Amino acid sequence: MKRYLLFISALVLCFNANAQIKEDFVPSELNQPGQEYPMVNSQGYARFRVNAPKAESVVVSLGLGGSGGTTLQKGEDGFWWGTTSGPLDEGFHYYHLTIDGGVFNDPGTENYYGSTRWESGIEIPAKDKDFYAMKNVPHGKVSQVWFWSESTKQFRRAFVYTPPTYDPAQKDVNYPVLYLQHGWGENEYAWWNQGHANLIMDNLIADGKIDPFIVVMTYGMTNEGFRPGAARAAGPRPAAGATASASAGAGNPRTGAPRTGAPRTGFNMMDNGFQTVLCDELVPYIDANFKTKADRANRAMAGLSMGGMETHTITLARPEMFSYFGLLSGGVYTPEELKDIKDVKGVFVGCGSKESGDRILKAAEDLKAAGYNAKGYVSDGTAHEFLTWRRCLLEMAPMLFK
Amino acid sequence: MKRYLLFISALVLCFNANAQIKEDFVPSELNQPGQEYPMVNSQGYARFRVNAPKAESVVVSLGLGGSGGTTLQKGEDGFWWGTTSGPLDEGFHYYHLTIDGGVFNDPGTENYYGSTRWESGIEIPAKDKDFYAMKNVPHGKVSQVWFWSESTKQFRRAFVYTPPTYDPAQKDVNYPVLYLQHGWGENEYAWWNQGHANLIMDNLIADGKIDPFIVVMTYGMTNEGFRPGAARAAGPRPAAGATASASAGAGNPRTGAPRTGAPRTGFNMMDNGFQTVLCDELVPYIDANFKTKADRANRAMAGLSMGGMETHTITLARPEMFSYFGLLSGGVYTPEELKDIKDVKGVFVGCGSKESGDRILKAAEDLKAAGYNAKGYVSDGTAHEFLTWRRCLLEMAPMLFK
Repeated sequence: MKRYLLFISALVLCFNANAQIKEDFVPSELNQPGQEYPMVNSQGYARFRVNAPKAESVVVSLGLGGSGGTTLQKGEDGFWWGTTSGPLDEGFHYYHLTIDGGVFNDPGTENYYGSTRWESGIEIPAKDKDFYAMKNVPHGKVSQVWFWSESTKQFRRAFVYTPPTYDPAQKDVNYPVLYLQHGWGENEYAWWNQGHANLIMDNLIADGKIDPFIVVMTYGMTNEGFRPGAARAAGPRPAAGATASASAGAGNPRTGAPRTGAPRTGFNMMDNGFQTVLCDELVPYIDANFKTKADRANRAMAGLSMGGMETHTITLARPEMFSYFGLLSGGVYTPEELKDIKDVKGVFVGCGSKESGDRILKAAEDLKAAGYNAKGYVSDGTAHEFLTWRRCLLEMAPMLFK
Repeated sequence: MKRYLLFISALVLCFNANAQIKEDFVPSELNQPGQEYPMVNSQGYARFRVNAPKAESVVVSLGLGGSGGTTLQKGEDGFWWGTTSGPLDEGFHYYHLTIDGGVFNDPGTENYYGSTRWESGIEIPAKDKDFYAMKNVPHGKVSQVWFWSESTKQFRRAFVYTPPTYDPAQKDVNYPVLYLQHGWGENEYAWWNQGHANLIMDNLIADGKIDPFIVVMTYGMTNEGFRPGAARAAGPRPAAGATASASAGAGNPRTGAPRTGAPRTGFNMMDNGFQTVLCDELVPYIDANFKTKADRANRAMAGLSMGGMETHTITLARPEMFSYFGLLSGGVYTPEELKDIKDVKGVFVGCGSKESGDRILKAAEDLKAAGYNAKGYVSDGTAHEFLTWRRCLLEMAPMLFK
């Protein structure tokens, strides 16, 4: 009788375990056209299917398994299958596959640059996803521009969001500018591809929650490390005072980065390279080529993670440039740090609840107590990932340029 | 003695064979940052290195091997190595890896959308590569726009090249427009990512070879085929006359395409879907949102391959829209076909020398004999690939809008 009861209990447990995963999987919205996998369900589980019939091992870098990933199993249909052992956090996640020991992307998904490579990506729909959805509202443009950087001797790229009301014919209407930086290992695509910054702005504007402004997203690293003898562009040295000088030749036209064989190195916090690029090269280029309100009161800087650290460094080192500061999972400001900066108009600090939320909220309180226009925000249920930063942008934007 | 001579001959042949491949390999300019492989040499050989230590088989889809690809061999260092058995044509080539029977991209390269998927890409430097290089000249912008398409009930994307002189403050200066279409299996990224259309235009303008014009690049397929029951955006039906209506919700915000589980099907030449999108939705959007010369005399259409077939169909079906026509590896026009079209201002037909060059040149001669302003061009040493089309754009642009 006891064995019988044990057996029944085991069956029941098994049934319950299986019943926990809802079989309402749909393709991730970040899949390549026509690709059904990976799929996600309403609880946040992700299911993967990979075609590699003769492989011995296929592991997905996402999931809660012992290795921090999800080991796939080969089915009778020849495909490798697997489901995460638990739900993933809402929002965007980078990932890749390891096929027989080599790292490859999942051919099912679009590609997203992070961790210094184009990775695969998956989206777990969030309860509040509406604010970054493509909706029935006017859409701004995102424009690729190449600006000459004398300090790094190359053309560099920025993507510039201009709001829907940015009409070329409205000659005398100018806009404030937010300079918005990505994190380590990411690039100038991050904020609009992973972050949907353009859609967040479109929706905020349509909802009347902000007055339109421009958002500039550029590549924030200057210290990739060059391999000696690596091919650099040969060409005439720039003439003094020339605005666009010297050939960028052998560089990568996609990023403007010079050809280098060395992998991108870590962020050197003491490297002023990006500070010069941003303050002395990009800002003047934007002010010359877009309809901007070209003064400190109408210029903000914010960034995520390493971009936040850059923001912290640069806003303090160049206090004449920006009057609104935003750190997104990028640390805090203290009143002591700001005391010598004239007219700080607004400070935003944010992070995910799985990060150091208490520190963020305390920092905001300290700043308010010291008389600053400060806001602290903690994104519920997210970690050091892009849904945190989409929400931070949503919370920060309405405090800018008021 | 005879065996000795045979032996020496074999050695000499072997030496000569090995001496044929110059060991001056450098990383392909399309590699991801920091990635050394694949490499190319001055003769057009490509060398691959892939990390998949436990794989049984790694094949590159490029090359002249029996299977049409290059089978890699596992080295003692655990990497899979291989060099194409002969030189590749100059220019851009799509490719992918097959790892143990599954198709994956080479993590060494950037990604390029072709054959209905994001593929890897490699560039064999061409003798004339300067015309599409990033040079020390003013650069135009490439802007992402989303336009509402009532006929396909979704927002669709276009990338719009505006020339360096396109100054928002110059209120009354307007520009002609070239609508430039991609081939089957490609998308709205093709002409500027694979084709460098923006850089070709920048250089032509800087060299004074053309007066500046706008280039519009959109996604040319409307008949992907929907899986019944696939999630479509729920939302309010557009109000009559509304310009931006209905939620695109569950669609892919990257492409604007609705979520579909079906792979993209072949091109249906009888499908008028794109004709409506282009003529009745995109052109009005561009004329409303950019500084265009909004008349037939200042509007051109051209396309490669399937995009050329679309051009042929649409220019003849909608003769009031365009006055300059370009077919790039996309067939020909005959005087008979054009005889009822009023005021055809220019016709360009081009292809690669490894395609049907004689037919192209004959068609151009027939058109000229019939009184048309026609140009035929055959790209030397290239096939149905992007260097052909970059060169076609170079040759076609100076005949537009004169």
